[in-house]
Amino acid sequence: MAPRARLVLDRAEVIVGYSSYIQLLDQGLVHGKEVISTGMTKEVQRCRAALDLACQGRRTAVVCSGDSGIYALAGLILELMEERNLAESMDLQIVPGIPALAAAASSLGAPLMHDFASISLSDLLTPWEVIDKRVRAAAEADFVIILYNPRSKTRTWQLEAIRCLLLKVRNGDTPVGVVKNASKDDERVVFTTLEGLDTESVDMKCTVIIGNSQTRRIGHWLLTPRGYAAKYDLTKQSGG
Amino acid sequence: MAPRARLVLDRAEVIVGYSSYIQLLDQGLVHGKEVISTGMTKEVQRCRAALDLACQGRRTAVVCSGDSGIYALAGLILELMEERNLAESMDLQIVPGIPALAAAASSLGAPLMHDFASISLSDLLTPWEVIDKRVRAAAEADFVIILYNPRSKTRTWQLEAIRCLLLKVRNGDTPVGVVKNASKDDERVVFTTLEGLDTESVDMKCTVIIGNSQTRRIGHWLLTPRGYAAKYDLTKQSGG
Repeated sequence: MAPRARLVLDRAEVIVGYSSYIQLLDQGLVHGKEVISTGMTKEVQRCRAALDLACQGRRTAVVCSGDSGIYALAGLILELMEERNLAESMDLQIVPGIPALAAAASSLGAPLMHDFASISLSDLLTPWEVIDKRVRAAAEADFVIILYNPRSKTRTWQLEAIRCLLLKVRNGDTPVGVVKNASKDDERVVFTTLEGLDTESVDMKCTVIIGNSQTRRIGHWLLTPRGYAAKYDLTKQSGG
Repeated sequence: MAPRARLVLDRAEVIVGYSSYIQLLDQGLVHGKEVISTGMTKEVQRCRAALDLACQGRRTAVVCSGDSGIYALAGLILELMEERNLAESMDLQIVPGIPALAAAASSLGAPLMHDFASISLSDLLTPWEVIDKRVRAAAEADFVIILYNPRSKTRTWQLEAIRCLLLKVRNGDTPVGVVKNASKDDERVVFTTLEGLDTESVDMKCTVIIGNSQTRRIGHWLLTPRGYAAKYDLTKQSGG
Protein backbone atom coordinates (compact mmCIF):
# COMPACT_ATOMS: atom_id res chain seq x y z
CA MET A 1 0.00 0.00 0.00
CA ALA A 2 1.33 3.39 -1.02
CA PRO A 3 2.06 5.95 1.73
CA ARG A 4 -0.82 8.24 0.77
CA ALA A 5 -3.36 5.42 1.10
CA ARG A 6 -1.80 4.46 4.42
CA LEU A 7 -2.03 8.02 5.69
CA VAL A 8 -5.70 8.30 4.72
CA LEU A 9 -6.49 5.04 6.50
CA ASP A 10 -4.50 6.09 9.53
CA ARG A 11 -6.56 9.28 9.83
CA ALA A 12 -9.91 7.64 9.13
CA GLU A 13 -12.49 7.13 11.87
CA VAL A 14 -14.40 4.49 9.90
CA ILE A 15 -13.11 1.95 7.37
CA VAL A 16 -15.57 0.47 4.88
CA GLY A 17 -14.72 -2.46 2.59
CA TYR A 18 -15.15 -6.00 1.41
CA SER A 19 -14.23 -8.25 4.36
CA SER A 20 -11.38 -10.06 2.55
CA TYR A 21 -9.71 -6.73 1.72
CA ILE A 22 -10.03 -5.47 5.31
CA GLN A 23 -8.27 -8.65 6.47
CA LEU A 24 -5.34 -7.86 4.16
CA LEU A 25 -4.77 -4.47 5.82
CA ASP A 26 -2.08 -3.90 8.40
CA GLN A 27 -4.27 -4.48 11.47
CA GLY A 28 -2.58 -1.57 13.22
CA LEU A 29 -4.47 0.66 10.80
CA VAL A 30 -7.78 -1.02 11.64
CA HIS A 31 -7.45 -1.29 15.42
CA GLY A 32 -9.83 0.90 17.40
CA LYS A 33 -11.80 2.00 14.37
CA GLU A 34 -15.32 1.28 13.32
CA VAL A 35 -15.22 -1.23 10.47
CA ILE A 36 -18.08 -1.85 8.08
CA SER A 37 -17.39 -4.89 5.95
CA THR A 38 -19.73 -6.94 3.84
CA GLY A 39 -19.47 -9.61 1.15
CA MET A 40 -18.32 -9.17 -2.40
CA THR A 41 -21.61 -8.37 -4.09
CA LYS A 42 -22.75 -5.76 -1.57
CA GLU A 43 -20.65 -2.92 -2.89
CA VAL A 44 -23.51 -0.49 -3.50
CA GLN A 45 -24.68 -1.09 0.05
CA ARG A 46 -21.15 -0.48 1.37
CA CYS A 47 -20.71 2.73 -0.57
CA ARG A 48 -24.12 4.02 0.55
CA ALA A 49 -23.17 3.28 4.16
CA ALA A 50 -19.87 5.13 3.67
CA LEU A 51 -21.69 8.20 2.32
CA ASP A 52 -24.16 8.08 5.23
CA LEU A 53 -21.27 8.14 7.67
CA ALA A 54 -19.42 10.90 5.82
CA CYS A 55 -22.62 12.98 5.86
CA GLN A 56 -22.62 12.62 9.65
CA GLY A 57 -19.20 14.26 9.63
CA ARG A 58 -17.15 11.14 10.22
CA ARG A 59 -13.85 10.67 8.34
CA THR A 60 -14.66 7.60 6.32
CA ALA A 61 -12.31 5.57 4.10
CA VAL A 62 -13.56 3.11 1.50
CA VAL A 63 -11.07 0.35 0.68
CA CYS A 64 -10.79 -1.56 -2.56
CA SER A 65 -8.06 -3.66 -4.15
CA GLY A 66 -5.73 -2.49 -6.91
CA ASP A 67 -6.41 1.07 -8.04
CA SER A 68 -9.61 2.73 -6.80
CA GLY A 69 -10.39 4.20 -10.21
CA ILE A 70 -10.00 1.17 -12.50
CA TYR A 71 -13.17 -0.97 -12.47
CA ALA A 72 -13.36 -0.25 -8.74
CA LEU A 73 -15.28 1.94 -6.30
CA ALA A 74 -14.30 5.57 -7.05
CA GLY A 75 -16.83 5.77 -9.87
CA LEU A 76 -19.64 4.23 -7.87
CA ILE A 77 -19.02 6.69 -5.03
CA LEU A 78 -19.25 9.57 -7.53
CA GLU A 79 -22.51 8.19 -8.97
CA LEU A 80 -24.03 7.89 -5.50
CA MET A 81 -22.81 11.40 -4.57
CA GLU A 82 -24.54 12.71 -7.69
CA GLU A 83 -27.75 10.91 -6.70
CA ARG A 84 -27.67 12.71 -3.35
CA ASN A 85 -26.48 16.07 -4.66
CA LEU A 86 -23.23 15.79 -2.75
CA ALA A 87 -20.80 16.16 -5.65
CA GLU A 88 -19.99 19.81 -4.93
CA SER A 89 -20.15 19.79 -1.16
CA MET A 90 -18.50 16.58 0.01
CA ASP A 91 -14.76 16.59 0.68
CA LEU A 92 -13.83 13.53 -1.37
CA GLN A 93 -10.28 12.34 -1.94
CA ILE A 94 -9.61 9.65 -4.54
CA VAL A 95 -6.35 7.87 -3.73
CA PRO A 96 -4.62 5.96 -6.54
CA GLY A 97 -3.02 2.55 -6.09
CA ILE A 98 -1.12 -0.05 -8.09
CA PRO A 99 -3.69 -1.44 -10.54
CA ALA A 100 -3.94 -5.18 -11.21
CA LEU A 101 -2.72 -4.57 -14.76
CA ALA A 102 0.59 -3.16 -13.50
CA ALA A 103 0.99 -5.76 -10.75
CA ALA A 104 0.26 -8.62 -13.17
CA ALA A 105 2.53 -7.17 -15.85
CA SER A 106 5.48 -6.87 -13.45
CA SER A 107 5.20 -10.56 -12.54
CA LEU A 108 5.19 -11.52 -16.22
CA GLY A 109 8.04 -9.21 -17.29
CA ALA A 110 7.27 -6.11 -19.33
CA PRO A 111 4.30 -6.90 -21.58
CA LEU A 112 2.87 -3.34 -21.33
CA MET A 113 5.83 -1.46 -22.76
CA HIS A 114 3.78 -0.56 -25.80
CA ASP A 115 0.17 0.58 -26.31
CA PHE A 116 -2.47 -1.50 -24.56
CA ALA A 117 -6.22 -1.75 -24.15
CA SER A 118 -7.93 -2.76 -20.94
CA ILE A 119 -11.28 -4.51 -21.31
CA SER A 120 -13.59 -6.00 -18.70
CA LEU A 121 -15.39 -9.16 -19.85
CA SER A 122 -18.22 -8.61 -17.38
CA ASP A 123 -21.41 -8.21 -19.38
CA LEU A 124 -23.57 -7.54 -16.33
CA LEU A 125 -23.71 -3.81 -17.09
CA THR A 126 -22.21 -3.67 -20.59
CA PRO A 127 -23.87 -5.31 -23.60
CA TRP A 128 -21.82 -8.19 -25.00
CA GLU A 129 -21.81 -6.50 -28.43
CA VAL A 130 -19.86 -3.55 -26.98
CA ILE A 131 -17.29 -5.87 -25.38
CA ASP A 132 -16.96 -7.95 -28.56
CA LYS A 133 -16.52 -4.81 -30.68
CA ARG A 134 -13.81 -3.49 -28.37
CA VAL A 135 -11.83 -6.72 -28.38
CA ARG A 136 -12.01 -6.84 -32.18
CA ALA A 137 -10.89 -3.20 -32.50
CA ALA A 138 -8.04 -3.68 -30.03
CA ALA A 139 -6.88 -6.86 -31.76
CA GLU A 140 -6.97 -5.35 -35.24
CA ALA A 141 -5.02 -2.26 -34.12
CA ASP A 142 -2.38 -4.52 -32.49
CA PHE A 143 -2.87 -3.38 -28.91
CA VAL A 144 -1.64 -5.57 -26.08
CA ILE A 145 -4.92 -6.56 -24.40
CA ILE A 146 -5.59 -6.81 -20.67
CA LEU A 147 -8.74 -8.69 -19.70
CA TYR A 148 -10.30 -7.83 -16.34
CA ASN A 149 -13.07 -9.99 -14.83
CA PRO A 150 -12.23 -12.70 -17.35
CA ARG A 151 -14.43 -15.47 -15.99
CA SER A 152 -16.66 -16.08 -12.97
CA LYS A 153 -18.84 -18.92 -11.66
CA THR A 154 -21.78 -17.57 -13.62
CA ARG A 155 -19.99 -16.00 -16.63
CA THR A 156 -18.32 -19.09 -18.02
CA TRP A 157 -18.37 -18.78 -21.85
CA GLN A 158 -17.12 -15.22 -22.45
CA LEU A 159 -13.36 -15.79 -22.16
CA GLU A 160 -13.46 -18.77 -24.52
CA ALA A 161 -15.49 -16.71 -27.01
CA ILE A 162 -12.86 -13.97 -26.86
CA ARG A 163 -10.05 -16.49 -27.32
CA CYS A 164 -11.74 -17.83 -30.47
CA LEU A 165 -12.32 -14.30 -31.74
CA LEU A 166 -8.67 -13.34 -31.14
CA LEU A 167 -7.42 -16.47 -32.93
CA LYS A 168 -9.01 -15.12 -36.12
CA VAL A 169 -6.83 -11.98 -35.90
CA ARG A 170 -3.66 -13.07 -34.04
CA ASN A 171 -1.33 -16.05 -34.32
CA GLY A 172 -1.97 -19.05 -32.12
CA ASP A 173 1.52 -18.69 -30.66
CA THR A 174 0.85 -15.13 -29.43
CA PRO A 175 2.17 -15.08 -25.83
CA VAL A 176 -0.46 -14.92 -23.08
CA GLY A 177 0.12 -14.43 -19.36
CA VAL A 178 -2.38 -15.22 -16.63
CA VAL A 179 -1.72 -13.87 -13.15
CA LYS A 180 -3.90 -14.99 -10.26
CA ASN A 181 -3.88 -12.94 -7.03
CA ALA A 182 -1.31 -10.53 -8.44
CA SER A 183 1.14 -9.21 -5.80
CA LYS A 184 -0.45 -11.30 -3.06
CA ASP A 185 1.37 -14.05 -1.14
CA ASP A 186 -0.45 -16.75 -3.07
CA GLU A 187 0.21 -15.23 -6.50
CA ARG A 188 0.29 -17.73 -9.37
CA VAL A 189 1.69 -16.94 -12.81
CA VAL A 190 1.02 -18.94 -15.97
CA PHE A 191 2.78 -18.33 -19.29
CA THR A 192 0.92 -19.76 -22.25
CA THR A 193 -0.22 -18.85 -25.76
CA LEU A 194 -3.51 -17.91 -27.33
CA GLU A 195 -3.73 -21.46 -28.70
CA GLY A 196 -2.76 -23.02 -25.38
CA LEU A 197 -4.83 -20.86 -23.01
CA ASP A 198 -6.99 -23.12 -20.85
CA THR A 199 -9.88 -20.75 -20.23
CA GLU A 200 -11.53 -23.09 -17.72
CA SER A 201 -8.62 -22.62 -15.34
CA VAL A 202 -9.21 -18.84 -15.22
CA ASP A 203 -11.37 -17.21 -12.55
CA MET A 204 -12.25 -13.78 -11.16
CA LYS A 205 -8.97 -13.51 -9.30
CA CYS A 206 -7.05 -13.65 -12.57
CA THR A 207 -5.81 -10.89 -14.86
CA VAL A 208 -5.15 -12.05 -18.41
CA ILE A 209 -2.62 -10.25 -20.64
CA ILE A 210 -2.55 -11.07 -24.36
CA GLY A 211 0.51 -9.97 -26.29
CA ASN A 212 0.53 -8.00 -29.53
CA SER A 213 2.30 -9.04 -32.74
CA GLN A 214 5.68 -8.04 -31.26
CA THR A 215 5.39 -9.63 -27.80
CA ARG A 216 7.92 -12.40 -27.20
CA ARG A 217 9.54 -14.50 -24.49
CA ILE A 218 12.96 -13.49 -23.19
CA GLY A 219 14.12 -16.26 -20.86
CA HIS A 220 11.22 -16.78 -18.48
CA TRP A 221 9.97 -13.22 -19.04
CA LEU A 222 7.43 -11.70 -21.40
CA LEU A 223 8.38 -8.56 -23.33
CA THR A 224 6.56 -6.24 -25.69
CA PRO A 225 9.42 -4.17 -27.11
CA ARG A 226 9.10 -0.40 -27.18
CA GLY A 227 9.60 0.08 -30.87
CA TYR A 228 8.38 -1.33 -34.14
CA ALA A 229 11.70 -1.16 -35.94
CA ALA A 230 12.75 -4.74 -36.63
CA LYS A 231 16.29 -3.97 -35.60
CA TYR A 232 16.86 -0.53 -34.22
CA ASP A 233 19.91 1.03 -32.73
CA LEU A 234 19.44 0.88 -28.97
CA THR A 235 21.92 3.70 -28.50
CA LYS A 236 19.60 6.15 -30.21
CA GLN A 237 16.49 5.49 -28.14
CA SER A 238 14.98 8.03 -25.81
CA GLY A 239 11.92 8.18 -23.66
CA GLY A 240 10.55 11.10 -25.69
CA MET B 1 6.42 4.98 -3.27
CA ALA B 2 4.99 1.59 -2.41
CA PRO B 3 6.66 -0.43 0.39
CA ARG B 4 8.10 -3.05 -1.96
CA ALA B 5 9.90 -0.40 -4.03
CA ARG B 6 11.15 1.19 -0.82
CA LEU B 7 12.47 -2.11 0.45
CA VAL B 8 14.32 -2.79 -2.79
CA LEU B 9 15.94 0.66 -2.69
CA ASP B 10 16.80 0.24 0.96
CA ARG B 11 18.68 -2.99 0.20
CA ALA B 12 20.37 -1.72 -2.96
CA GLU B 13 24.09 -0.94 -3.04
CA VAL B 14 23.81 1.20 -6.18
CA ILE B 15 20.91 3.37 -7.39
CA VAL B 16 20.71 4.25 -11.07
CA GLY B 17 18.29 6.80 -12.47
CA TYR B 18 17.46 10.07 -14.17
CA SER B 19 18.78 12.82 -11.89
CA SER B 20 15.39 14.50 -11.36
CA TYR B 21 13.88 11.22 -10.16
CA ILE B 22 16.77 10.55 -7.78
CA GLN B 23 16.17 13.99 -6.24
CA LEU B 24 12.54 13.04 -5.57
CA LEU B 25 13.58 10.01 -3.49
CA ASP B 26 13.61 10.07 0.29
CA GLN B 27 17.29 10.99 0.69
CA GLY B 28 17.58 8.54 3.57
CA LEU B 29 17.32 5.81 0.94
CA VAL B 30 20.08 7.37 -1.15
CA HIS B 31 22.56 8.26 1.60
CA GLY B 32 25.79 6.29 1.58
CA LYS B 33 25.04 4.56 -1.71
CA GLU B 34 26.68 4.85 -5.07
CA VAL B 35 24.38 6.85 -7.33
CA ILE B 36 24.60 6.88 -11.11
CA SER B 37 22.38 9.56 -12.53
CA THR B 38 22.31 11.08 -15.97
CA GLY B 39 20.00 13.27 -18.04
CA MET B 40 16.65 12.35 -19.54
CA THR B 41 17.80 11.04 -22.91
CA LYS B 42 20.57 8.81 -21.61
CA GLU B 43 18.39 5.94 -20.54
CA VAL B 44 20.09 3.25 -22.61
CA GLN B 45 23.42 4.34 -21.15
CA ARG B 46 21.98 4.22 -17.61
CA CYS B 47 20.50 0.75 -18.08
CA ARG B 48 23.77 -0.55 -19.56
CA ALA B 49 25.64 0.83 -16.56
CA ALA B 50 23.15 -0.85 -14.23
CA LEU B 51 23.65 -4.22 -15.94
CA ASP B 52 27.44 -3.80 -15.76
CA LEU B 53 27.21 -3.25 -12.02
CA ALA B 54 24.79 -6.13 -11.51
CA CYS B 55 27.17 -8.40 -13.44
CA GLN B 56 29.88 -7.42 -10.93
CA GLY B 57 27.60 -8.81 -8.22
CA ARG B 58 26.40 -5.49 -6.85
CA ARG B 59 22.75 -5.11 -5.81
CA THR B 60 21.63 -2.47 -8.28
CA ALA B 61 18.27 -0.68 -8.42
CA VAL B 62 17.08 1.23 -11.49
CA VAL B 63 14.58 3.98 -10.70
CA CYS B 64 11.91 5.35 -13.00
CA SER B 65 8.73 7.36 -12.43
CA GLY B 66 5.22 5.91 -12.45
CA ASP B 67 5.14 2.18 -13.11
CA SER B 68 8.35 0.54 -14.30
CA GLY B 69 6.55 -1.55 -16.93
CA ILE B 70 4.41 1.10 -18.69
CA TYR B 71 6.47 2.99 -21.30
CA ALA B 72 9.35 2.87 -18.80
CA LEU B 73 12.58 0.98 -18.17
CA ALA B 74 11.61 -2.63 -17.39
CA GLY B 75 11.33 -3.48 -21.08
CA LEU B 76 14.63 -1.83 -22.00
CA ILE B 77 16.40 -3.76 -19.23
CA LEU B 78 14.98 -7.01 -20.60
CA GLU B 79 16.10 -6.12 -24.14
CA LEU B 80 19.62 -5.36 -22.94
CA MET B 81 19.69 -8.58 -20.87
CA GLU B 82 18.72 -10.51 -24.01
CA GLU B 83 21.53 -8.79 -25.93
CA ARG B 84 24.01 -10.01 -23.32
CA ASN B 85 22.48 -13.47 -22.82
CA LEU B 86 21.60 -12.63 -19.22
CA ALA B 87 17.87 -13.30 -19.38
CA GLU B 88 18.07 -16.72 -17.71
CA SER B 89 20.90 -16.10 -15.29
CA MET B 90 20.38 -12.63 -13.83
CA ASP B 91 18.27 -12.26 -10.69
CA LEU B 92 15.94 -9.50 -11.90
CA GLN B 93 12.99 -8.18 -9.93
CA ILE B 94 10.47 -5.91 -11.65
CA VAL B 95 8.68 -3.80 -9.04
CA PRO B 96 5.34 -2.26 -10.01
CA GLY B 97 4.32 1.29 -9.11
CA ILE B 98 1.38 3.64 -9.53
CA PRO B 99 1.29 4.43 -13.27
CA ALA B 100 0.72 7.98 -14.49
CA LEU B 101 -2.63 6.90 -15.92
CA ALA B 102 -3.91 5.94 -12.46
CA ALA B 103 -2.39 8.98 -10.73
CA ALA B 104 -3.85 11.34 -13.36
CA ALA B 105 -7.24 9.64 -13.30
CA SER B 106 -7.51 9.94 -9.52
CA SER B 107 -6.93 13.70 -9.71
CA LEU B 108 -9.65 14.04 -12.34
CA GLY B 109 -12.21 11.80 -10.64
CA ALA B 110 -12.94 8.35 -12.07
CA PRO B 111 -12.56 8.56 -15.84
CA LEU B 112 -11.14 4.99 -16.13
CA MET B 113 -14.09 3.11 -14.66
CA HIS B 114 -14.79 1.59 -18.02
CA ASP B 115 -12.60 0.13 -20.78
CA PHE B 116 -9.64 2.26 -21.84
CA ALA B 117 -6.79 2.32 -24.30
CA SER B 118 -3.37 3.73 -23.54
CA ILE B 119 -1.44 5.16 -26.49
CA SER B 120 1.94 6.88 -26.65
CA LEU B 121 2.12 9.67 -29.23
CA SER B 122 5.89 9.34 -29.51
CA ASP B 123 6.67 8.39 -33.09
CA LEU B 124 10.41 8.05 -32.48
CA LEU B 125 10.21 4.25 -32.49
CA THR B 126 6.67 3.65 -33.74
CA PRO B 127 5.54 4.66 -37.25
CA TRP B 128 2.90 7.40 -37.17
CA GLU B 129 0.53 5.18 -39.19
CA VAL B 130 0.45 2.66 -36.33
CA ILE B 131 -0.33 5.38 -33.79
CA ASP B 132 -2.98 6.93 -36.04
CA LYS B 133 -4.61 3.54 -36.62
CA ARG B 134 -4.72 2.80 -32.89
CA VAL B 135 -6.31 6.13 -32.02
CA ARG B 136 -8.97 5.59 -34.72
CA ALA B 137 -9.69 2.04 -33.54
CA ALA B 138 -9.91 3.13 -29.90
CA ALA B 139 -12.18 6.06 -30.76
CA GLU B 140 -14.52 3.99 -32.90
CA ALA B 141 -14.83 1.28 -30.25
CA ASP B 142 -15.64 3.95 -27.62
CA PHE B 143 -12.65 3.39 -25.37
CA VAL B 144 -11.61 6.09 -22.94
CA ILE B 145 -8.20 7.10 -24.34
CA ILE B 146 -5.07 7.92 -22.35
CA LEU B 147 -2.33 9.71 -24.27
CA TYR B 148 1.23 9.31 -22.98
CA ASN B 149 4.08 11.48 -24.32
CA PRO B 150 1.48 13.79 -25.86
CA ARG B 151 3.79 16.58 -26.99
CA SER B 152 7.45 17.54 -26.67
CA LYS B 153 9.69 20.38 -27.81
CA THR B 154 10.41 18.50 -31.02
CA ARG B 155 7.13 16.60 -31.50
CA THR B 156 4.74 19.52 -31.76
CA TRP B 157 2.03 18.59 -34.30
CA GLN B 158 1.00 15.08 -33.23
CA LEU B 159 -1.42 15.95 -30.43
CA GLU B 160 -3.27 18.49 -32.57
CA ALA B 161 -3.52 15.92 -35.38
CA ILE B 162 -5.03 13.43 -32.93
CA ARG B 163 -7.49 16.04 -31.63
CA CYS B 164 -8.68 16.71 -35.19
CA LEU B 165 -8.94 12.98 -35.89
CA LEU B 166 -10.97 12.40 -32.70
CA LEU B 167 -13.34 15.28 -33.51
CA LYS B 168 -14.45 13.32 -36.58
CA VAL B 169 -15.57 10.42 -34.36
CA ARG B 170 -16.48 12.02 -31.01
CA ASN B 171 -18.51 15.06 -30.00
CA GLY B 172 -16.70 18.34 -29.47
CA ASP B 173 -18.04 18.46 -25.91
CA THR B 174 -16.42 15.12 -24.97
CA PRO B 175 -14.73 15.76 -21.61
CA VAL B 176 -10.93 15.87 -21.61
CA GLY B 177 -8.63 16.05 -18.61
CA VAL B 178 -4.99 17.10 -18.69
CA VAL B 179 -2.83 16.39 -15.65
CA LYS B 180 0.67 17.81 -15.45
CA ASN B 181 3.12 16.32 -12.94
CA ALA B 182 0.51 13.88 -11.63
CA SER B 183 0.81 13.21 -7.87
CA LYS B 184 3.75 15.59 -7.49
CA ASP B 185 3.67 18.74 -5.36
CA ASP B 186 3.33 20.96 -8.41
CA GLU B 187 0.52 18.94 -10.00
CA ARG B 188 -1.78 20.94 -12.28
CA VAL B 189 -5.17 19.71 -13.47
CA VAL B 190 -7.12 21.10 -16.42
CA PHE B 191 -10.69 20.07 -17.29
CA THR B 192 -11.64 20.85 -20.85
CA THR B 193 -13.31 19.30 -23.89
CA LEU B 194 -12.11 17.89 -27.17
CA GLU B 195 -13.20 21.14 -28.82
CA GLY B 196 -11.57 23.30 -26.16
CA LEU B 197 -8.29 21.41 -25.69
CA ASP B 198 -5.40 23.84 -26.16
CA THR B 199 -2.80 21.40 -27.44
CA GLU B 200 -0.03 24.00 -27.31
CA SER B 201 -0.27 24.15 -23.54
CA VAL B 202 0.50 20.42 -23.26
CA ASP B 203 4.03 19.08 -22.73
CA MET B 204 5.87 15.86 -21.89
CA LYS B 205 4.98 16.15 -18.22
CA CYS B 206 1.28 15.88 -19.06
CA THR B 207 -1.01 12.88 -19.24
CA VAL B 208 -4.13 13.49 -21.36
CA ILE B 209 -7.35 11.53 -20.76
CA ILE B 210 -10.13 11.72 -23.35
CA GLY B 211 -13.58 10.55 -22.26
CA ASN B 212 -15.75 8.06 -24.10
CA SER B 213 -19.38 8.69 -25.16
CA GLN B 214 -20.58 8.19 -21.57
CA THR B 215 -17.99 10.30 -19.70
CA ARG B 216 -19.51 13.29 -17.92
CA ARG B 217 -18.81 15.92 -15.29
CA ILE B 218 -20.18 15.40 -11.77
CA GLY B 219 -19.50 18.57 -9.82
CA HIS B 220 -15.81 19.27 -10.39
CA TRP B 221 -15.10 15.58 -11.09
CA LEU B 222 -14.95 13.54 -14.26
CA LEU B 223 -16.76 10.18 -14.37
CA THR B 224 -17.04 7.38 -16.89
CA PRO B 225 -19.87 5.31 -15.44
CA ARG B 226 -19.44 1.57 -15.10
CA GLY B 227 -22.43 0.51 -17.13
CA TYR B 228 -24.02 1.27 -20.45
CA ALA B 229 -27.63 1.00 -19.30
CA ALA B 230 -29.09 4.49 -19.61
CA LYS B 231 -30.73 4.17 -16.22
CA TYR B 232 -29.86 1.05 -14.31
CA ASP B 233 -30.79 -0.02 -10.86
CA LEU B 234 -27.79 0.77 -8.67
CA THR B 235 -28.94 -1.76 -6.09
CA LYS B 236 -28.36 -4.62 -8.51
CA GLN B 237 -24.77 -3.85 -9.44
CA SER B 238 -21.90 -6.08 -8.55
CA GLY B 239 -18.21 -6.08 -9.23
CA GLY B 240 -18.46 -9.37 -11.15
